[in-house]
Amino acid sequence: MADISQAHITNGGVSSSKHLAPDLSRLASRLEAAGNASEVELRLACREVQQSLEGLARGLMPGTASDLSLRVQRQPENPFDQLLPLMKDASNVVLCKGVPPDEYLPLNTICFTVKKWDSVDDVQTVNVDAASTMLAQRYPALAWGQLKSILCEHTRSVCKPAASDWAIALSAGSMSALDIAIAMFLNPGDTILVEEFTFLAMIDACVAAGVRLVPISCDSSGLCPESLELVLRSERSAGRVPKLLYTVPVGQNPLGTRLPADRYQAIYDLCTEHGVVILEDDAYFYQQHNAHDSLADDDGSAVGDLENLGATFAAIDHKGLVFRLESFAKMLAPGFRLGWVTGPKRFIEAYEKLCYISTQQGSSLAMVCLASLLSQWGRDGLQAQLRSLQLGLRRRCRALLRACEAHLSDLATWAKPQAGMFLWLKMTRPTPTFSCEALVESMQRHGVVAMPGSFCSPEPGRAVPYLRLSFVTPEDSYPEGLRRLRKVLLELSLPLKSSEEAYPSG
Amino acid sequence: MADISQAHITNGGVSSSKHLAPDLSRLASRLEAAGNASEVELRLACREVQQSLEGLARGLMPGTASDLSLRVQRQPENPFDQLLPLMKDASNVVLCKGVPPDEYLPLNTICFTVKKWDSVDDVQTVNVDAASTMLAQRYPALAWGQLKSILCEHTRSVCKPAASDWAIALSAGSMSALDIAIAMFLNPGDTILVEEFTFLAMIDACVAAGVRLVPISCDSSGLCPESLELVLRSERSAGRVPKLLYTVPVGQNPLGTRLPADRYQAIYDLCTEHGVVILEDDAYFYQQHNAHDSLADDDGSAVGDLENLGATFAAIDHKGLVFRLESFAKMLAPGFRLGWVTGPKRFIEAYEKLCYISTQQGSSLAMVCLASLLSQWGRDGLQAQLRSLQLGLRRRCRALLRACEAHLSDLATWAKPQAGMFLWLKMTRPTPTFSCEALVESMQRHGVVAMPGSFCSPEPGRAVPYLRLSFVTPEDSYPEGLRRLRKVLLELSLPLKSSEEAYPSG
Repeated sequence: MADISQAHITNGGVSSSKHLAPDLSRLASRLEAAGNASEVELRLACREVQQSLEGLARGLMPGTASDLSLRVQRQPENPFDQLLPLMKDASNVVLCKGVPPDEYLPLNTICFTVKKWDSVDDVQTVNVDAASTMLAQRYPALAWGQLKSILCEHTRSVCKPAASDWAIALSAGSMSALDIAIAMFLNPGDTILVEEFTFLAMIDACVAAGVRLVPISCDSSGLCPESLELVLRSERSAGRVPKLLYTVPVGQNPLGTRLPADRYQAIYDLCTEHGVVILEDDAYFYQQHNAHDSLADDDGSAVGDLENLGATFAAIDHKGLVFRLESFAKMLAPGFRLGWVTGPKRFIEAYEKLCYISTQQGSSLAMVCLASLLSQWGRDGLQAQLRSLQLGLRRRCRALLRACEAHLSDLATWAKPQAGMFLWLKMTRPTPTFSCEALVESMQRHGVVAMPGSFCSPEPGRAVPYLRLSFVTPEDSYPEGLRRLRKVLLELSLPLKSSEEAYPSG
Repeated sequence: MADISQAHITNGGVSSSKHLAPDLSRLASRLEAAGNASEVELRLACREVQQSLEGLARGLMPGTASDLSLRVQRQPENPFDQLLPLMKDASNVVLCKGVPPDEYLPLNTICFTVKKWDSVDDVQTVNVDAASTMLAQRYPALAWGQLKSILCEHTRSVCKPAASDWAIALSAGSMSALDIAIAMFLNPGDTILVEEFTFLAMIDACVAAGVRLVPISCDSSGLCPESLELVLRSERSAGRVPKLLYTVPVGQNPLGTRLPADRYQAIYDLCTEHGVVILEDDAYFYQQHNAHDSLADDDGSAVGDLENLGATFAAIDHKGLVFRLESFAKMLAPGFRLGWVTGPKRFIEAYEKLCYISTQQGSSLAMVCLASLLSQWGRDGLQAQLRSLQLGLRRRCRALLRACEAHLSDLATWAKPQAGMFLWLKMTRPTPTFSCEALVESMQRHGVVAMPGSFCSPEPGRAVPYLRLSFVTPEDSYPEGLRRLRKVLLELSLPLKSSEEAYPSG
């Protein structure tokens, strides 16, 4: 494996630019020729040359040894930072604040009640005191201290990041963190590697950003290192250097896989060899319900403690190439719109800079309420909440698996979900005319809603005969839901050998 | 005035592209020539041609009659929208949700106490019921209903938007809305017009986005229509079409001006003539304290009711070219990280699309708490809160003006702030070596902190002899603060005629 610093040099950092002359002449000729060609060819040539020029221009810019985007490189240092030490000195008269005076902030105290997972129907009360309530109304940078310190300790003990200078910052939810990560690492025209089926909104965000998505094959354990290596070599030989690998290693959306520990190291080594930053989206890290194991549905020993949730990329990131996203959306509640990011200091600094001109990392009110809750819960309270959620998902997942077995085994195949909340169903006998539109129309008629697999494909318009089922709604609806889904799949599958209406069991 | 549809056509929308051939040949020759030139010239040529090609490519893309960005045009329709009607039908079995089951959301109830502005030291209690507490924990799209409907009614009665299809959406604070507005309207290399001194973080956000900032002169009433017209004509004659005018018309940051009603129409007419979208940032709209008038400091009749806060661009936007930003940060508390945007439907739809792949428009918890507060307050409660804030700012503003008069009248000039919380001070006798660094260093030594005016300039590195003072901290600190500031200004000003230490009064 080459050292990462060498990989970076191949990304840019040219000292002389004379070698560009042939490229420029080639592009110039391309343009000249296109000037006499048809409009279609002209359009094509224009876009091609533009992208080539963007790449060349990037190579000429100072600082391209960085794996960060032009946006980050262009953003000025915040001059206000010069005033912060002066503002903190209590002996100074401060005439530079741009916020309403504290005494006009409306809230006095906040209080909420929380379910207690260890005793049914019991609640506990969380009181946010006057000082914290004041912080909840001020700018996030003044309010995030307690939550950041809780999450820093949590990350240290649960994830154990390997980067020597790792740090965390808050996010206004993982989708916002992904949006900022795209702005932070990618320029239009850059390449991002993704699992062959992946998070719908992330696909849209990349397409909107003008980023090129390249899918990597997965199997029943998730992302295949061999496929990653093939793609990296083929990209490299085509003169392209992918900037980012976006991966959801645990409870993959939609595959439901959990990456085995040995694949982490293989994937990490490939990425460092090629100078590819890993964007690790671990939104489902705390949903490791192990519904695939042989223990009973309700066996409490099946679900993981916070101490042994297993491998992460951040935990092996000795070279500082991983930007890890976690979120409260799937472990507690989406409504806080809070999560956190972990990475080497230079990533966190770039991220914080971009947050300063966008989200401020989330709502102070949500930060303070969440910090008060986590602080009162302590580690045991969070553990109880997660265990309860994991066991709930485990029960529902296994109920859904039984319903699939009963109703769909002659029409589809699936792997047992290892984490998260999705079951990925592959139709075994789709008709040649199978389409996403036909699937939605049939589901509507039969009264059942699953997600068409094509929504999860980074290749637009691809009619993939997959469905993503989730085990979120209560399990008593699964038998009827799957009976209806059987009718849908029957309509969209080639005829069964015996009778179309026959059930797998008889 | 030309019709706006014509202005749009001049923005792009070419039907044939043959006319591009000379441009392409010129660029090709430029590249060929640069191939033999020095590295510096080569870099320059490469960037220039790239930008020209980007412009040409944009002109060739379908849909450039739109004033929206390439990012918006590239973003796919959200396929999940196809499933929403199916999910809403209660008779359907829903197997497509990707959120924790409702029964695992931790919060049961929320309750907070709020100051009562009409009776000192009294508080009122706001109870968020179990159903709303549940919404506060779910995705924002499920939680924002009540707040959106309150703000829609508020906007209808206070701002009275003129666009026939106006709508609103929430924002995760105004800075986030500005970030999204940049992504929504501007491509790298595009031009944005701004007041000659403006909001620091917006400058940084535009620079980061690779956008060209062009300042427009202002006077003691704010943005000058004459200056705007000159710039628009000069841009047009240079073959450039500015895409956006960013303006803070009320309580301008840092100028403290309030745009007179007649300027709104003049500016609006110019913008529609040239097809320029107006980004109206009215964060200080509810801070109209009229500290410049002749009434007493504490005269309650001085500050505006919600009914007569005066002109806005949205209120005259019959052609649907205004995207208006409002925020709770300055009227209530920055910590909610909530605001709202108003505009014609096509703007709001584009904005919502971009929010779907980023902020989700803010925290559900903050939305639900704020909606509960506003709902319990009603219009009278909000009016009381705003009146209290406005009178507080009025008192402080007038105290700061008196302190300036007493300590700085021989060293600086200023206009009386008309709204907002800033006083813009111009040094009348700066030394030729005046610099921002010297100002910060001197303030540090003398124990006073104001914002150097250069922070507010879109022209980087310009040493402008201005300071932005705010009247946020309690007014009893102003006399000492201004005594210290006098020492700072004395150090950075040419010697006074009589004695350097002399006070204006004697």
